[in-house]
Amino acid sequence: MDFSSKLLENAVNEVSRLPGIGKRTALRLVLFLLKQPKENTTYLAEALQKLRTEVKTCKKCHNISDTDFCEICSNLNRDSKTICVVEDIRDVMAIESTAQYRGLYHVLGGKISPIEGVGPQNLTIDSLVEKVKKGEVKELIFALSSTMEGDTTNFYIYKQIEEFGITTSTIARGISVGDELEYADEVTLGRSILHRIPFEQSFQK
Amino acid sequence: MDFSSKLLENAVNEVSRLPGIGKRTALRLVLFLLKQPKENTTYLAEALQKLRTEVKTCKKCHNISDTDFCEICSNLNRDSKTICVVEDIRDVMAIESTAQYRGLYHVLGGKISPIEGVGPQNLTIDSLVEKVKKGEVKELIFALSSTMEGDTTNFYIYKQIEEFGITTSTIARGISVGDELEYADEVTLGRSILHRIPFEQSFQK
Repeated sequence: MDFSSKLLENAVNEVSRLPGIGKRTALRLVLFLLKQPKENTTYLAEALQKLRTEVKTCKKCHNISDTDFCEICSNLNRDSKTICVVEDIRDVMAIESTAQYRGLYHVLGGKISPIEGVGPQNLTIDSLVEKVKKGEVKELIFALSSTMEGDTTNFYIYKQIEEFGITTSTIARGISVGDELEYADEVTLGRSILHRIPFEQSFQK
Repeated sequence: MDFSSKLLENAVNEVSRLPGIGKRTALRLVLFLLKQPKENTTYLAEALQKLRTEVKTCKKCHNISDTDFCEICSNLNRDSKTICVVEDIRDVMAIESTAQYRGLYHVLGGKISPIEGVGPQNLTIDSLVEKVKKGEVKELIFALSSTMEGDTTNFYIYKQIEEFGITTSTIARGISVGDELEYADEVTLGRSILHRIPFEQSFQK
């Protein structure tokens, strides 16, 4: 692309570094900002800068937070002995929105993935094992996505905490509520038959 | 969405104001920035701010430029008597990348669209008419997209410059090079038959 302005080119280049945003989309976004009042660009730039420099991670669960301990970890009404292991904050938000879980979380910050150069040392696994070692955990729920990387990460953590004899579980895999059986993939359908539950439980909350 | 951090919520809200970016995408982009070095966010924020505050529009063609007169308008090798009327900078870039046009441009900054509240006074039509009036223009090429709004804008401009007797033209509409006839819409196919050109011209450059 040939730009008539270095400033424009620079802005487009920076925006197109974001994932899933190509040069054309970046140009569209930048031209949109140019048509808007100047304050809007200032708000956007400041919000990003402020977030990047001031945001903290909760010292207990590693979730993104404005304070040293996040709202969930500071909430005394929650069951602090049950910990749900998730990949990132989006998973926390997804589980929180179900309003079905009253325990705490542990945010790993990713999954073990040799291809992407992510090893156990890049994740918060040590601090999770530490919690288990100290006897702070009664049940650990693995809620990573069920991919090769997710399963590897689960297994790696499991091997490290096995000796402490706490309860471990993994979220149920099965056919989504409302989904047609015929469109389900074989692995999911297979698992949902293997791990079938007593019928009376299916309409309990 | 329930955010665990006000800073995060604020950043996501600002990013999701951009066109075509919803809350989920905004969250993905913001979390990406959080995983990157701090400088990257600074570069992005500064590039946007700098562009918004320092960029100029060319005093002659209204294209985005770092200087008072853009590179195209300042280029003495170009035919300054031929002016191509386009909607915005993206059209200039598209035409420039063909390397088939040696005249200048006039960037309107939009199309007349009563629904979106864009009237002739919001565009740079007056300055275009002024150029024609002063005898600076020999040919005017209309290159707006052929929608209701584009055609209206073309006609509005045409009516204002009709009396000065300059040559006016519009870019050819027809089947794209490489397209199959059977998939073309009727209007385009119809026009391409009406405005057929002598066969010998079709392989001239």
